[in-house]
Amino acid sequence: MKEKVIRFGISLNDKLLSSFDKTISSEGYTNRSEAIRDLIREKLISKEWIKGKREVVGVITFVYSHHARELDSHLINFQHHNYKLIISSTHIHLNEENCLEVIISRGKPQEIQKIADLIKSFRGVKHITLSMTTTGENIL
Amino acid sequence: MKEKVIRFGISLNDKLLSSFDKTISSEGYTNRSEAIRDLIREKLISKEWIKGKREVVGVITFVYSHHARELDSHLINFQHHNYKLIISSTHIHLNEENCLEVIISRGKPQEIQKIADLIKSFRGVKHITLSMTTTGENIL
Amino acid sequence: MKEKVIRFGISLNDKLLSSFDKTISSEGYTNRSEAIRDLIREKLISKEWIKGKREVVGVITFVYSHHARELDSHLINFQHHNYKLIISSTHIHLNEENCLEVIISRGKPQEIQKIADLIKSFRGVKHITLSMTTTGENIL
Amino acid sequence: MKEKVIRFGISLNDKLLSSFDKTISSEGYTNRSEAIRDLIREKLISKEWIKGKREVVGVITFVYSHHARELDSHLINFQHHNYKLIISSTHIHLNEENCLEVIISRGKPQEIQKIADLIKSFRGVKHITLSMTTTGENIL
Repeated sequence: MKEKVIRFGISLNDKLLSSFDKTISSEGYTNRSEAIRDLIREKLISKEWIKGKREVVGVITFVYSHHARELDSHLINFQHHNYKLIISSTHIHLNEENCLEVIISRGKPQEIQKIADLIKSFRGVKHITLSMTTTGENIL
Repeated sequence: MKEKVIRFGISLNDKLLSSFDKTISSEGYTNRSEAIRDLIREKLISKEWIKGKREVVGVITFVYSHHARELDSHLINFQHHNYKLIISSTHIHLNEENCLEVIISRGKPQEIQKIADLIKSFRGVKHITLSMTTTGENIL
Repeated sequence: MKEKVIRFGISLNDKLLSSFDKTISSEGYTNRSEAIRDLIREKLISKEWIKGKREVVGVITFVYSHHARELDSHLINFQHHNYKLIISSTHIHLNEENCLEVIISRGKPQEIQKIADLIKSFRGVKHITLSMTTTGENIL
Repeated sequence: MKEKVIRFGISLNDKLLSSFDKTISSEGYTNRSEAIRDLIREKLISKEWIKGKREVVGVITFVYSHHARELDSHLINFQHHNYKLIISSTHIHLNEENCLEVIISRGKPQEIQKIADLIKSFRGVKHITLSMTTTGENIL
Protein backbone atom coordinates (compact mmCIF):
# COMPACT_ATOMS: atom_id res chain seq x y z
CA MET A 1 0.00 0.00 0.00
CA LYS A 2 1.27 3.42 -0.92
CA GLU A 3 1.73 5.64 2.12
CA LYS A 4 0.63 9.26 1.89
CA VAL A 5 2.51 12.15 3.40
CA ILE A 6 0.62 15.21 4.53
CA ARG A 7 2.16 18.60 5.09
CA PHE A 8 0.74 21.22 7.44
CA GLY A 9 1.90 24.35 9.23
CA ILE A 10 2.37 25.06 12.91
CA SER A 11 3.22 28.32 14.61
CA LEU A 12 5.57 28.85 17.51
CA ASN A 13 6.97 31.65 19.58
CA ASP A 14 10.46 32.43 18.20
CA LYS A 15 12.23 31.89 21.53
CA LEU A 16 10.53 28.54 22.04
CA LEU A 17 11.48 27.50 18.53
CA SER A 18 15.10 28.54 18.96
CA SER A 19 15.35 26.58 22.26
CA PHE A 20 13.85 23.56 20.54
CA ASP A 21 16.23 23.80 17.58
CA LYS A 22 19.23 24.01 19.92
CA THR A 23 18.07 21.03 21.99
CA ILE A 24 17.34 18.70 19.11
CA SER A 25 20.54 19.61 17.32
CA SER A 26 22.48 18.67 20.47
CA GLU A 27 20.76 15.29 20.28
CA GLY A 28 21.88 14.74 16.71
CA TYR A 29 18.74 15.70 14.77
CA THR A 30 19.36 17.49 11.50
CA ASN A 31 15.68 17.93 10.79
CA ARG A 32 12.97 19.62 12.84
CA SER A 33 10.13 17.63 11.28
CA GLU A 34 11.79 14.38 12.32
CA ALA A 35 12.10 15.56 15.93
CA ILE A 36 8.43 16.55 16.03
CA ARG A 37 7.36 13.25 14.48
CA ASP A 38 9.30 11.46 17.25
CA LEU A 39 7.45 13.42 19.92
CA ILE A 40 4.12 12.54 18.32
CA ARG A 41 4.98 8.84 18.09
CA GLU A 42 6.11 8.75 21.71
CA LYS A 43 2.80 10.21 22.81
CA LEU A 44 0.76 7.79 20.71
CA ILE A 45 2.72 4.73 21.82
CA SER A 46 2.39 5.60 25.49
CA LYS A 47 -1.37 6.03 24.92
CA GLU A 48 -1.56 2.59 23.25
CA TRP A 49 -0.10 1.05 26.39
CA ILE A 50 -2.46 2.95 28.69
CA LYS A 51 -5.58 2.14 26.71
CA GLY A 52 -4.56 -1.51 26.50
CA LYS A 53 -6.80 -2.48 23.60
CA ARG A 54 -4.34 -3.05 20.77
CA GLU A 55 -1.44 -5.40 20.30
CA VAL A 56 1.88 -3.86 21.31
CA VAL A 57 5.50 -4.93 21.63
CA GLY A 58 7.25 -5.06 24.99
CA VAL A 59 10.88 -5.77 25.75
CA ILE A 60 11.45 -7.37 29.15
CA THR A 61 14.99 -7.13 30.51
CA PHE A 62 16.00 -8.88 33.70
CA VAL A 63 19.11 -9.70 35.68
CA TYR A 64 19.17 -12.91 37.67
CA SER A 65 21.47 -15.08 39.67
CA HIS A 66 22.99 -17.96 37.84
CA HIS A 67 23.21 -19.72 41.20
CA ALA A 68 19.52 -19.57 42.10
CA ARG A 69 18.34 -23.17 42.39
CA GLU A 70 16.46 -24.30 39.28
CA LEU A 71 15.79 -20.76 38.13
CA ASP A 72 17.28 -21.40 34.66
CA SER A 73 14.97 -24.29 33.90
CA HIS A 74 12.07 -22.50 35.59
CA LEU A 75 12.60 -19.54 33.23
CA ILE A 76 12.77 -21.76 30.15
CA ASN A 77 9.60 -23.62 31.09
CA PHE A 78 7.82 -20.39 31.82
CA GLN A 79 8.78 -18.95 28.44
CA HIS A 80 7.69 -22.10 26.60
CA HIS A 81 4.38 -21.98 28.39
CA ASN A 82 3.94 -18.40 27.12
CA TYR A 83 5.37 -19.03 23.66
CA LYS A 84 2.47 -17.29 21.91
CA LEU A 85 3.47 -14.00 23.49
CA ILE A 86 7.23 -14.38 23.27
CA ILE A 87 9.07 -13.74 20.01
CA SER A 88 12.67 -14.21 21.11
CA SER A 89 15.02 -14.16 24.03
CA THR A 90 18.70 -13.22 24.27
CA HIS A 91 21.00 -14.27 27.08
CA ILE A 92 24.16 -12.48 28.29
CA HIS A 93 26.64 -13.64 30.94
CA LEU A 94 27.31 -10.53 32.98
CA ASN A 95 29.76 -12.04 35.46
CA GLU A 96 30.37 -15.16 37.58
CA GLU A 97 27.18 -14.61 39.44
CA ASN A 98 24.70 -12.78 37.22
CA CYS A 99 22.98 -13.27 33.87
CA LEU A 100 20.98 -10.81 31.80
CA GLU A 101 18.07 -11.94 29.68
CA VAL A 102 16.10 -9.88 27.18
CA ILE A 103 12.69 -11.16 26.06
CA ILE A 104 10.89 -9.57 23.11
CA SER A 105 7.15 -10.10 23.45
CA ARG A 106 4.05 -9.17 21.48
CA GLY A 107 0.49 -9.08 22.78
CA LYS A 108 -1.95 -6.96 24.74
CA PRO A 109 -0.34 -4.61 27.27
CA GLN A 110 -1.83 -6.48 30.25
CA GLU A 111 -0.55 -9.82 28.98
CA ILE A 112 2.98 -8.49 28.63
CA GLN A 113 2.82 -6.71 31.97
CA LYS A 114 1.64 -9.96 33.58
CA ILE A 115 4.65 -11.84 32.21
CA ALA A 116 7.00 -9.16 33.52
CA ASP A 117 5.32 -9.22 36.96
CA LEU A 118 5.62 -12.99 37.20
CA ILE A 119 9.27 -13.10 36.19
CA LYS A 120 9.97 -10.36 38.71
CA SER A 121 8.48 -12.42 41.50
CA PHE A 122 10.75 -15.42 40.83
CA ARG A 123 13.34 -15.85 43.55
CA GLY A 124 16.75 -15.07 42.10
CA VAL A 125 15.50 -12.48 39.63
CA LYS A 126 17.06 -9.28 40.91
CA HIS A 127 15.94 -6.52 38.60
CA ILE A 128 13.49 -6.21 35.76
CA THR A 129 12.42 -3.49 33.37
CA LEU A 130 9.74 -3.38 30.71
CA SER A 131 10.27 -1.24 27.60
CA MET A 132 7.02 -0.30 25.95
CA THR A 133 7.06 0.00 22.20
CA THR A 134 4.83 -0.70 19.24
CA THR A 135 4.14 -3.15 16.43
CA GLY A 136 4.19 -0.15 14.13
CA GLU A 137 0.65 -0.75 12.85
CA ASN A 138 -1.19 2.49 12.09
CA ILE A 139 0.87 4.81 14.20
CA LEU A 140 4.18 4.93 12.43
CA MET B 1 9.19 43.02 24.62
CA LYS B 2 7.14 42.06 21.63
CA GLU B 3 7.06 38.31 21.08
CA LYS B 4 7.42 37.00 17.58
CA VAL B 5 5.54 34.04 16.19
CA ILE B 6 7.15 31.91 13.53
CA ARG B 7 5.27 29.59 11.22
CA PHE B 8 6.82 26.55 9.57
CA GLY B 9 5.68 23.35 7.91
CA ILE B 10 6.09 19.75 8.96
CA SER B 11 5.22 16.60 7.05
CA LEU B 12 3.65 13.46 8.46
CA ASN B 13 2.43 10.11 7.26
CA ASP B 14 -1.37 10.39 6.91
CA LYS B 15 -2.10 7.46 9.25
CA LEU B 16 0.17 8.84 11.93
CA LEU B 17 -1.48 12.23 11.60
CA SER B 18 -4.98 10.80 11.83
CA SER B 19 -4.05 8.80 14.97
CA PHE B 20 -2.59 11.95 16.49
CA ASP B 21 -5.66 14.03 15.67
CA LYS B 22 -7.94 11.43 17.26
CA THR B 23 -5.83 11.20 20.39
CA ILE B 24 -5.50 14.92 21.02
CA SER B 25 -9.16 15.54 20.32
CA SER B 26 -10.04 12.91 22.97
CA GLU B 27 -7.92 14.94 25.38
CA GLY B 28 -9.81 18.14 24.67
CA TYR B 29 -7.51 19.88 22.20
CA THR B 30 -9.23 21.77 19.42
CA ASN B 31 -5.99 22.76 17.77
CA ARG B 32 -3.15 20.62 16.45
CA SER B 33 -0.52 23.37 16.77
CA GLU B 34 -1.32 23.73 20.45
CA ALA B 35 -0.85 19.99 21.05
CA ILE B 36 2.50 20.03 19.27
CA ARG B 37 3.64 23.10 21.18
CA ASP B 38 2.80 21.23 24.41
CA LEU B 39 4.98 18.29 23.37
CA ILE B 40 7.85 20.63 22.57
CA ARG B 41 7.57 22.44 25.90
CA GLU B 42 7.47 19.16 27.83
CA LYS B 43 10.66 18.05 26.15
CA LEU B 44 12.45 21.33 26.82
CA ILE B 45 11.38 21.49 30.46
CA SER B 46 12.51 17.96 31.17
CA LYS B 47 15.86 18.84 29.56
CA GLU B 48 16.18 21.95 31.76
CA TRP B 49 15.87 19.72 34.83
CA ILE B 50 18.40 17.21 33.53
CA LYS B 51 20.98 19.82 32.56
CA GLY B 52 20.56 21.53 35.89
CA LYS B 53 22.06 24.87 34.93
CA ARG B 54 19.09 27.20 34.88
CA GLU B 55 16.60 28.27 37.49
CA VAL B 56 13.45 26.12 37.47
CA VAL B 57 10.26 25.77 39.49
CA GLY B 58 9.52 22.63 41.47
CA VAL B 59 6.37 21.73 43.39
CA ILE B 60 7.00 19.44 46.36
CA THR B 61 3.96 17.59 47.68
CA PHE B 62 4.12 15.49 50.81
CA VAL B 63 1.82 13.65 53.18
CA TYR B 64 2.81 13.44 56.81
CA SER B 65 1.52 12.35 60.14
CA HIS B 66 0.06 15.08 62.28
CA HIS B 67 1.02 12.95 65.28
CA ALA B 68 4.74 12.68 64.55
CA ARG B 69 6.52 14.30 67.46
CA GLU B 70 7.68 17.86 66.65
CA LEU B 71 7.42 17.28 62.90
CA ASP B 72 5.20 20.35 62.40
CA SER B 73 7.66 22.73 63.97
CA HIS B 74 10.56 20.91 62.35
CA LEU B 75 8.96 21.46 58.94
CA ILE B 76 8.34 25.15 59.61
CA ASN B 77 11.91 25.73 60.77
CA PHE B 78 13.27 23.87 57.80
CA GLN B 79 11.23 25.96 55.39
CA HIS B 80 12.29 29.21 57.05
CA HIS B 81 15.89 28.13 56.82
CA ASN B 82 15.40 27.61 53.07
CA TYR B 83 13.23 30.67 52.52
CA LYS B 84 15.24 31.83 49.52
CA LEU B 85 14.17 28.75 47.59
CA ILE B 86 10.58 28.52 48.83
CA ILE B 87 7.88 30.76 47.39
CA SER B 88 4.83 29.44 49.22
CA SER B 89 3.35 26.50 51.04
CA THR B 90 -0.23 25.28 51.31
CA HIS B 91 -1.51 22.98 54.01
CA ILE B 92 -4.48 20.59 53.81
CA HIS B 93 -5.94 18.44 56.61
CA LEU B 94 -6.56 15.08 54.95
CA ASN B 95 -7.96 13.25 57.96
CA GLU B 96 -7.49 12.78 61.72
CA GLU B 97 -4.05 11.42 61.17
CA ASN B 98 -2.58 12.89 57.99
CA CYS B 99 -1.76 16.30 56.54
CA LEU B 100 -0.79 17.25 53.01
CA GLU B 101 1.59 20.08 52.31
CA VAL B 102 2.47 21.60 48.95
CA ILE B 103 5.61 23.72 48.67
CA ILE B 104 6.30 25.81 45.58
CA SER B 105 10.03 26.38 45.18
CA ARG B 106 12.30 28.14 42.72
CA GLY B 107 16.00 27.52 42.24
CA LYS B 108 18.51 25.22 40.59
CA PRO B 109 17.26 21.65 40.04
CA GLN B 110 19.76 20.18 42.52
CA GLU B 111 18.77 22.66 45.22
CA ILE B 112 15.11 21.79 44.87
CA GLN B 113 15.85 18.07 44.70
CA LYS B 114 17.91 18.39 47.88
CA ILE B 115 15.00 19.99 49.72
CA ALA B 116 12.68 17.21 48.58
CA ASP B 117 15.18 14.52 49.64
CA LEU B 118 15.59 16.03 53.07
CA ILE B 119 11.88 16.39 53.72
CA LYS B 120 11.42 12.80 52.60
CA SER B 121 13.91 11.60 55.15
CA PHE B 122 12.08 13.23 58.08
CA ARG B 123 10.40 10.65 60.28
CA GLY B 124 6.64 10.98 59.91
CA VAL B 125 6.76 12.11 56.28
CA LYS B 126 5.10 9.24 54.47
CA HIS B 127 5.10 10.12 50.80
CA ILE B 128 6.61 12.83 48.69
CA THR B 129 6.55 13.80 45.03
CA LEU B 130 8.39 16.48 43.10
CA SER B 131 6.72 18.08 40.08
CA MET B 132 9.21 19.59 37.71
CA THR B 133 8.13 22.70 35.88
CA THR B 134 9.58 25.96 34.66
CA THR B 135 9.91 29.67 35.40
CA GLY B 136 8.79 30.24 31.84
CA GLU B 137 11.89 32.19 30.88
CA ASN B 138 12.91 31.60 27.26
CA ILE B 139 11.13 28.34 26.69
CA LEU B 140 7.49 29.28 26.71
CA MET C 1 -8.25 3.97 66.89
CA LYS C 2 -4.97 2.66 68.23
CA GLU C 3 -2.53 1.80 65.47
CA LYS C 4 -0.54 -1.40 65.78
CA VAL C 5 3.09 -1.73 64.78
CA ILE C 6 4.36 -5.07 63.57
CA ARG C 7 8.00 -6.06 63.51
CA PHE C 8 9.44 -8.66 61.16
CA GLY C 9 12.82 -9.71 59.80
CA ILE C 10 14.22 -9.53 56.30
CA SER C 11 17.50 -10.90 55.01
CA LEU C 12 19.84 -9.25 52.54
CA ASN C 13 23.18 -9.86 50.92
CA ASP C 14 25.76 -7.84 52.89
CA LYS C 15 27.01 -5.90 49.84
CA LEU C 16 23.48 -4.97 48.82
CA LEU C 17 22.75 -3.83 52.36
CA SER C 18 25.89 -1.73 52.58
CA SER C 19 25.11 -0.02 49.22
CA PHE C 20 21.60 0.68 50.46
CA ASP C 21 22.82 2.12 53.77
CA LYS C 22 25.27 4.40 51.96
CA THR C 23 22.60 5.62 49.53
CA ILE C 24 19.92 6.37 52.08
CA SER C 25 22.35 8.08 54.42
CA SER C 26 23.38 10.38 51.53
CA GLU C 27 19.70 11.28 51.22
CA GLY C 28 19.43 12.22 54.87
CA TYR C 29 17.86 9.10 56.36
CA THR C 30 19.09 8.14 59.80
CA ASN C 31 16.98 5.02 59.96
CA ARG C 32 16.86 2.03 57.64
CA SER C 33 13.31 1.05 58.57
CA GLU C 34 12.06 4.49 57.59
CA ALA C 35 13.72 4.24 54.16
CA ILE C 36 12.14 0.83 53.55
CA ARG C 37 8.73 2.05 54.68
CA ASP C 38 9.05 4.89 52.15
CA LEU C 39 9.76 2.40 49.34
CA ILE C 40 6.72 0.34 50.35
CA ARG C 41 4.43 3.37 50.46
CA GLU C 42 5.65 4.57 47.05
CA LYS C 43 4.83 1.20 45.56
CA LEU C 44 1.36 1.07 47.13
CA ILE C 45 0.46 4.62 46.14
CA SER C 46 1.48 4.07 42.53
CA LYS C 47 -0.67 0.92 42.53
CA GLU C 48 -3.65 2.87 43.91
CA TRP C 49 -3.41 5.20 40.93
CA ILE C 50 -3.10 2.36 38.44
CA LYS C 51 -6.02 0.39 39.84
CA GLY C 52 -8.16 3.50 39.93
CA LYS C 53 -10.77 2.25 42.40
CA ARG C 54 -10.07 4.27 45.50
CA GLU C 55 -10.09 7.97 46.25
CA VAL C 56 -6.65 9.53 45.87
CA VAL C 57 -5.12 13.01 46.04
CA GLY C 58 -3.58 14.66 42.99
CA VAL C 59 -1.69 17.92 42.76
CA ILE C 60 -1.99 19.62 39.38
CA THR C 61 0.65 22.23 38.61
CA PHE C 62 0.45 24.38 35.52
CA VAL C 63 2.13 27.40 33.97
CA TYR C 64 0.04 29.68 31.81
CA SER C 65 0.18 32.96 30.02
CA HIS C 66 -1.33 35.86 31.86
CA HIS C 67 -2.00 37.43 28.46
CA ALA C 68 -4.08 34.61 27.00
CA ARG C 69 -7.48 36.04 26.26
CA GLU C 70 -10.06 35.15 28.94
CA LEU C 71 -7.96 32.27 30.24
CA ASP C 72 -8.05 33.56 33.83
CA SER C 73 -11.81 33.64 34.00
CA HIS C 74 -12.05 30.40 32.04
CA LEU C 75 -9.83 28.70 34.64
CA ILE C 76 -11.89 30.06 37.54
CA ASN C 77 -15.16 28.94 36.00
CA PHE C 78 -13.74 25.54 35.24
CA GLN C 79 -12.56 25.09 38.81
CA HIS C 80 -15.92 26.18 40.23
CA HIS C 81 -17.67 23.73 37.97
CA ASN C 82 -15.44 20.98 39.40
CA TYR C 83 -15.53 22.22 42.98
CA LYS C 84 -16.34 18.78 44.39
CA LEU C 85 -12.97 17.49 43.22
CA ILE C 86 -10.89 20.58 44.01
CA ILE C 87 -9.76 21.31 47.55
CA SER C 88 -7.66 24.41 46.99
CA SER C 89 -5.67 26.37 44.47
CA THR C 90 -2.60 28.57 44.89
CA HIS C 91 -1.49 31.19 42.42
CA ILE C 92 2.06 32.51 41.85
CA HIS C 93 3.16 35.33 39.54
CA LEU C 94 6.29 33.96 37.85
CA ASN C 95 7.06 36.96 35.68
CA GLU C 96 5.45 39.63 33.46
CA GLU C 97 4.11 36.98 31.17
CA ASN C 98 3.57 33.76 33.11
CA CYS C 99 1.59 32.53 36.11
CA LEU C 100 1.86 29.27 38.01
CA GLU C 101 -1.17 27.64 39.55
CA VAL C 102 -1.26 24.63 41.85
CA ILE C 103 -4.57 22.81 42.35
CA ILE C 104 -4.98 20.20 45.07
CA SER C 105 -7.69 17.75 44.14
CA ARG C 106 -9.27 14.66 45.67
CA GLY C 107 -11.24 11.99 43.83
CA LYS C 108 -10.90 8.91 41.68
CA PRO C 109 -7.70 8.78 39.60
CA GLN C 110 -9.58 9.07 36.29
CA GLU C 111 -11.52 12.12 37.50
CA ILE C 112 -8.33 13.91 38.50
CA GLN C 113 -6.56 12.87 35.30
CA LYS C 114 -9.51 14.21 33.30
CA ILE C 115 -9.23 17.61 34.98
CA ALA C 116 -5.51 17.73 34.25
CA ASP C 117 -6.08 16.74 30.60
CA LEU C 118 -8.69 19.43 30.14
CA ILE C 119 -6.63 22.20 31.69
CA LYS C 120 -3.70 21.13 29.53
CA SER C 121 -5.78 21.54 26.40
CA PHE C 122 -6.72 25.18 27.17
CA ARG C 123 -4.96 27.61 24.86
CA GLY C 124 -2.42 29.58 26.87
CA VAL C 125 -1.65 26.75 29.31
CA LYS C 126 1.95 25.95 28.53
CA HIS C 127 2.99 23.13 30.83
CA ILE C 128 1.21 20.89 33.27
CA THR C 129 2.22 18.13 35.67
CA LEU C 130 0.18 15.83 37.87
CA SER C 131 1.65 14.63 41.16
CA MET C 132 0.03 11.44 42.36
CA THR C 133 -0.31 11.01 46.08
CA THR C 134 -2.72 9.57 48.60
CA THR C 135 -5.45 10.44 51.09
CA GLY C 136 -3.51 8.35 53.57
CA GLU C 137 -6.42 5.97 54.24
CA ASN C 138 -5.23 2.42 54.93
CA ILE C 139 -1.84 2.60 53.35
CA LEU C 140 0.08 4.92 55.60
CA MET D 1 33.93 -15.34 47.06
CA LYS D 2 31.42 -16.42 49.67
CA GLU D 3 28.48 -14.05 49.93
CA LYS D 4 27.20 -13.17 53.36
CA VAL D 5 23.55 -12.74 54.19
CA ILE D 6 22.55 -10.34 56.92
CA ARG D 7 19.23 -10.41 58.73
CA PHE D 8 17.67 -7.39 60.39
CA GLY D 9 14.27 -6.29 61.64
CA ILE D 10 11.97 -3.56 60.37
CA SER D 11 8.75 -2.32 61.91
CA LEU D 12 5.59 -1.34 60.06
CA ASN D 13 2.09 -0.18 60.81
CA ASP D 14 -0.18 -3.25 60.58
CA LYS D 15 -2.50 -1.72 57.95
CA LEU D 16 0.43 -0.71 55.76
CA LEU D 17 1.88 -4.20 56.06
CA SER D 18 -1.39 -5.87 55.18
CA SER D 19 -1.82 -3.64 52.08
CA PHE D 20 1.72 -4.48 51.05
CA ASP D 21 1.21 -8.21 51.52
CA LYS D 22 -1.96 -8.12 49.43
CA THR D 23 -0.29 -6.15 46.65
CA ILE D 24 2.82 -8.28 46.34
CA SER D 25 0.85 -11.51 46.50
CA SER D 26 -1.28 -10.25 43.57
CA GLU D 27 1.99 -9.80 41.68
CA GLY D 28 3.09 -13.37 42.32
CA TYR D 29 5.47 -12.93 45.23
CA THR D 30 5.38 -15.67 47.84
CA ASN D 31 7.94 -13.99 50.03
CA ARG D 32 7.92 -10.56 51.63
CA SER D 33 11.72 -10.34 51.92
CA GLU D 34 12.07 -10.90 48.19
CA ALA D 35 9.62 -8.08 47.41
CA ILE D 36 11.50 -5.69 49.70
CA ARG D 37 14.86 -6.69 48.19
CA ASP D 38 13.41 -5.87 44.76
CA LEU D 39 12.39 -2.38 45.93
CA ILE D 40 15.87 -1.79 47.32
CA ARG D 41 17.58 -2.93 44.13
CA GLU D 42 15.32 -0.74 41.99
CA LYS D 43 16.24 2.28 44.07
CA LEU D 44 19.97 1.54 43.90
CA ILE D 45 19.98 0.88 40.17
CA SER D 46 18.13 4.08 39.41
CA LYS D 47 20.68 5.94 41.56
CA GLU D 48 23.57 4.30 39.66
CA TRP D 49 22.17 5.74 36.44
CA ILE D 50 21.65 9.19 37.94
CA LYS D 51 25.13 9.39 39.47
CA GLY D 52 26.68 8.20 36.24
CA LYS D 53 30.03 7.09 37.67
CA ARG D 54 29.88 3.32 37.43
CA GLU D 55 29.49 0.93 34.54
CA VAL D 56 25.87 -0.06 33.93
CA VAL D 57 23.90 -2.09 31.40
CA GLY D 58 21.36 -0.48 29.09
CA VAL D 59 18.98 -2.12 26.67
CA ILE D 60 18.10 0.06 23.69
CA THR D 61 14.97 -0.94 21.79
CA PHE D 62 13.99 0.77 18.56
CA VAL D 63 11.51 0.41 15.74
CA TYR D 64 12.55 1.56 12.30
CA SER D 65 11.41 1.53 8.73
CA HIS D 66 12.87 -1.18 6.60
CA HIS D 67 12.35 1.16 3.65
CA ALA D 68 14.40 4.08 4.91
CA ARG D 69 17.22 4.60 2.46
CA GLU D 70 20.50 3.10 3.69
CA LEU D 71 19.32 3.00 7.29
CA ASP D 72 20.15 -0.72 7.66
CA SER D 73 23.77 -0.28 6.67
CA HIS D 74 23.98 2.98 8.58
CA LEU D 75 22.84 1.16 11.73
CA ILE D 76 25.35 -1.65 11.25
CA ASN D 77 28.23 0.75 10.70
CA PHE D 78 27.21 2.77 13.70
CA GLN D 79 27.13 -0.32 15.90
CA HIS D 80 30.51 -1.50 14.68
CA HIS D 81 31.94 1.90 15.40
CA ASN D 82 30.67 1.58 18.97
CA TYR D 83 31.52 -2.09 19.38
CA LYS D 84 33.20 -1.55 22.74
CA LEU D 85 29.90 -0.49 24.25
CA ILE D 86 27.64 -2.95 22.46
CA ILE D 87 27.38 -6.55 23.62
CA SER D 88 24.74 -7.87 21.24
CA SER D 89 21.87 -6.95 19.01
CA THR D 90 18.70 -8.84 18.09
CA HIS D 91 16.57 -8.12 15.06
CA ILE D 92 12.84 -8.82 14.63
CA HIS D 93 10.72 -8.31 11.50
CA LEU D 94 7.54 -6.73 12.79
CA ASN D 95 5.72 -6.38 9.48
CA GLU D 96 6.23 -5.44 5.82
CA GLU D 97 7.32 -2.00 6.79
CA ASN D 98 8.88 -2.07 10.26
CA CYS D 99 11.75 -3.78 12.06
CA LEU D 100 12.53 -3.93 15.77
CA GLU D 101 16.07 -4.02 17.02
CA VAL D 102 17.26 -4.58 20.58
CA ILE D 103 20.82 -3.61 21.50
CA ILE D 104 22.35 -4.67 24.79
CA SER D 105 25.07 -2.26 25.82
CA ARG D 106 27.48 -1.86 28.71
CA GLY D 107 29.30 1.32 29.73
CA LYS D 108 28.89 4.57 31.58
CA PRO D 109 25.32 5.90 31.68
CA GLN D 110 26.17 8.94 29.51
CA GLU D 111 27.84 6.78 26.88
CA ILE D 112 24.79 4.54 26.58
CA GLN D 113 22.43 7.51 26.61
CA LYS D 114 24.48 9.11 23.82
CA ILE D 115 24.12 6.00 21.67
CA ALA D 116 20.37 5.96 22.22
CA ASP D 117 20.09 9.67 21.39
CA LEU D 118 22.03 9.24 18.17
CA ILE D 119 20.04 6.25 16.97
CA LYS D 120 16.86 8.16 17.76
CA SER D 121 17.95 11.02 15.53
CA PHE D 122 18.46 8.78 12.47
CA ARG D 123 15.78 9.36 9.86
CA GLY D 124 13.58 6.27 9.66
CA VAL D 125 13.96 5.36 13.34
CA LYS D 126 10.46 5.83 14.65
CA HIS D 127 10.54 5.00 18.34
CA ILE D 128 13.22 4.23 20.85
CA THR D 129 13.35 3.28 24.52
CA LEU D 130 16.24 2.78 26.89
CA SER D 131 15.92 0.26 29.72
CA MET D 132 18.28 1.00 32.56
CA THR D 133 19.65 -1.98 34.42
CA THR D 134 22.85 -3.08 36.09
CA THR D 135 25.97 -5.19 35.68
CA GLY D 136 25.15 -6.70 39.03
CA GLU D 137 28.45 -5.67 40.60
CA ASN D 138 28.09 -4.77 44.28
CA ILE D 139 24.42 -4.04 44.32
CA LEU D 140 22.81 -7.40 43.80
